[in-house]
Amino acid sequence: MPIIHVDMIKGRSSDSKRTFATEVTELACRCFEVKPAQVRVIFHEIPRENWAVAGTLFSDKEESPSAS
Amino acid sequence: MPIIHVDMIKGRSSDSKRTFATEVTELACRCFEVKPAQVRVIFHEIPRENWAVAGTLFSDKEESPSAS
Amino acid sequence: MPIIHVDMIKGRSSDSKRTFATEVTELACRCFEVKPAQVRVIFHEIPRENWAVAGTLFSDKEESPSAS
Amino acid sequence: MPIIHVDMIKGRSSDSKRTFATEVTELACRCFEVKPAQVRVIFHEIPRENWAVAGTLFSDKEESPSAS
Amino acid sequence: MPIIHVDMIKGRSSDSKRTFATEVTELACRCFEVKPAQVRVIFHEIPRENWAVAGTLFSDKEESPSAS
Amino acid sequence: MPIIHVDMIKGRSSDSKRTFATEVTELACRCFEVKPAQVRVIFHEIPRENWAVAGTLFSDKEESPSAS
Repeated sequence: MPIIHVDMIKGRSSDSKRTFATEVTELACRCFEVKPAQVRVIFHEIPRENWAVAGTLFSDKEESPSAS
Repeated sequence: MPIIHVDMIKGRSSDSKRTFATEVTELACRCFEVKPAQVRVIFHEIPRENWAVAGTLFSDKEESPSAS
Repeated sequence: MPIIHVDMIKGRSSDSKRTFATEVTELACRCFEVKPAQVRVIFHEIPRENWAVAGTLFSDKEESPSAS
Repeated sequence: MPIIHVDMIKGRSSDSKRTFATEVTELACRCFEVKPAQVRVIFHEIPRENWAVAGTLFSDKEESPSAS
Repeated sequence: MPIIHVDMIKGRSSDSKRTFATEVTELACRCFEVKPAQVRVIFHEIPRENWAVAGTLFSDKEESPSAS
Repeated sequence: MPIIHVDMIKGRSSDSKRTFATEVTELACRCFEVKPAQVRVIFHEIPRENWAVAGTLFSDKEESPSAS
């Protein structure tokens, strides 16, 4: 506790997830007064054809994930 | 906001997801007075061996997903 | 199946939720070829102090939920 | 109703999921006075590179999933 | 790990949740070869006006939660 | 996108949530190359009687949330 879930479009690098996991754990410890071993981080990577904004699936857009 | 998550058995067509995403976004805008750009739709497709009803996994059933 | 979860800011009327639940169920039946009894809709109403966009909690904003 | 979601590291056998689904359904019926047909169980299997404890991804650890 | 989430209609007794939490933890340990300290159970209690089956909110039904 | 959900025991201050939301948004922007307006943070505050570790509800423990 706490458990941090991240929903995001599939395709980020392992390095970006590694860095996020390390730093968000430190942040949670600092904000919520917990110890690192109490923090869990789970990434839910969603394929582009399974995520829509404004009614349009990412897979039907020209733009990159970062543009949403 | 709002964020609409749909848990369902894996295997629906892109067209069915596209239609659902478009129309549920319109519906959310009409019901909750938001703009399309504020609505997110995320499909979580679950393999048949990871979803049970009445204690039985779909992958152990004869019947099709639509029968559950 | 399917299960439709809606995360949204707390404060919508029962009527808006009632209408959404009825119509999204019809939509899911039409798109995914399921029967109404197979569709579940769950609203998760989030207090304004527990939802942030662009790093700012709704409770710290002037604007209304519909502006997010 | 109820809906039981299980987040866990990917890689458990079908038999272990089958047994869990059967028995947790019986348990839910006994504790919450529902019928088996009302209980849904969904397994969300998370790859080792998408789950961190204490800021470290499982895929960066020596240890097995059961050691977390 | 694993993390077990239970979505259910609000109103079950503390005793029923206590029993479920204890026994589902034992079950997870037996099925998935983890230790009790690795298992988390989280109940998400949903108000009757926020859960619909077949397009109808529980709060609009005559029947009790166990009948769904 | 991304959407960051935080499950935690109820009772943290608004200031701690405000700081976490601001900083995790910056972190997500840096790691995942998104803009602040694309990041959503949602806190799900769970009552102590609805969260168990090792089969025991927090409400049945002597210890504080930070000790879990």
